[in-house]
Amino acid sequence: MAAKLYTEKHEVPYYECDVTNYMTPAMLLNVIILISEKQNLDLGLGADFMEQFGLGWVVIQYDISIDRLPEINETISISTQATSYNRFFAFREFWMKDSDGKELVHVRSTWVTMNKSSRKMVTIPAAALEPYDSEPVKRLPRLKRPTKVEAADDVIEQKYQVRYYDIDGNGHVNNAHYLEWFTDVLPMDFLATHQPTAIYLRFENEVQYGHMIDSIVTKPIEVDGELTTNHQILVGDAVSATATIKWRNHD
Amino acid sequence: MAAKLYTEKHEVPYYECDVTNYMTPAMLLNVIILISEKQNLDLGLGADFMEQFGLGWVVIQYDISIDRLPEINETISISTQATSYNRFFAFREFWMKDSDGKELVHVRSTWVTMNKSSRKMVTIPAAALEPYDSEPVKRLPRLKRPTKVEAADDVIEQKYQVRYYDIDGNGHVNNAHYLEWFTDVLPMDFLATHQPTAIYLRFENEVQYGHMIDSIVTKPIEVDGELTTNHQILVGDAVSATATIKWRNHD
Repeated sequence: MAAKLYTEKHEVPYYECDVTNYMTPAMLLNVIILISEKQNLDLGLGADFMEQFGLGWVVIQYDISIDRLPEINETISISTQATSYNRFFAFREFWMKDSDGKELVHVRSTWVTMNKSSRKMVTIPAAALEPYDSEPVKRLPRLKRPTKVEAADDVIEQKYQVRYYDIDGNGHVNNAHYLEWFTDVLPMDFLATHQPTAIYLRFENEVQYGHMIDSIVTKPIEVDGELTTNHQILVGDAVSATATIKWRNHD
Repeated sequence: MAAKLYTEKHEVPYYECDVTNYMTPAMLLNVIILISEKQNLDLGLGADFMEQFGLGWVVIQYDISIDRLPEINETISISTQATSYNRFFAFREFWMKDSDGKELVHVRSTWVTMNKSSRKMVTIPAAALEPYDSEPVKRLPRLKRPTKVEAADDVIEQKYQVRYYDIDGNGHVNNAHYLEWFTDVLPMDFLATHQPTAIYLRFENEVQYGHMIDSIVTKPIEVDGELTTNHQILVGDAVSATATIKWRNHD
């Protein structure tokens, strides 16, 4: 039996777009997470359900393929499926399609359940999986990991203060903001003329309100014929998140 | 004949809310502007129409009354009406209502048309007004002006760098970000336990990409029985925007 698919339409308002009138990568994460929360609710597995176990779902890795980003005023459909799982990890996919059903974006993601008081990863409770009809597997699909920023790399670097509005209803920094810190460091000239084709993103340690973070990015270089940047977010010496982004020209 | 009313429903996603699970004041501005742009389009008066005159609409002042902010997952209805105008100014109102039709938020705003090359204010073309059935008036309603921050005030101050994602499709800073800069300066303790009841906001000079802005706020004090803060955004010595915000306790 295939895992349950959940689909909703989404009309892209101007404030989810950047100066190029395409959806920002951060908003892309926001809207897919919204759709997965709606599926959770639909199946009676919302935040309240997880709360009875003292648990919350936490995403640890994203692998995002982008044909093109959704554009201003466009109505897209967004689907999600909790595809497979093992004892500690769950694998969830997302698709964004245009009005002709053409795939624009495909996201693969790895999740864990975390004990809300100890902040430790725990075995996923069977009751929190069963209604999705996900497939139990020995090994989850392997997601591409970001390439490390090396000491010899030519980098650009900027500090950002975590702001009040970066914090969501759980009291944690909304994951989408990491994508803003990763990319804002790059020059406007570059951001306004390039669009990501792939984003590999890994979360390591939580950033908190009031933290000063250091966003470091390698200058765009060609790797295997694709323009690539490697990213790192640090709080002090601790790596909070890493990413690799591949880019194409776009006007 | 009353001016044409335009209404749309809006479901509030988590990423338009802050740690209290209520819509942020910045998102409140984003969604009302979206609704006014939809009315403009509906009447054939979108950005393309204004472009033929080389003009764009610019808001110069907001007077926002808040009974309570919309909350996470709530479906509200948002209405707008281009109520009245004279030669240089147009007056537009917005209403947010809950599902029982109870008014949550009422916004009154003053607009001008600006020549896109000279960045100068010009007479509003009749063709850009006629389809709204707005009422021509000698004097527009007087909106409350923000109270000045005075040299003797006890203030909190923080610098913010204007970021790439603060810029919208017109190449200008999206006005909603001013509200983030105004309020983020206040301590998290205060923001998480108070909700605005009124915001008087005035734009003076444009902030641009790369600018370092200085956000200054008076510590909350009681004025006429209401907790009040006065705000100022500076670029160097130039005042870019001012605001007065009244607050109530909320848990």
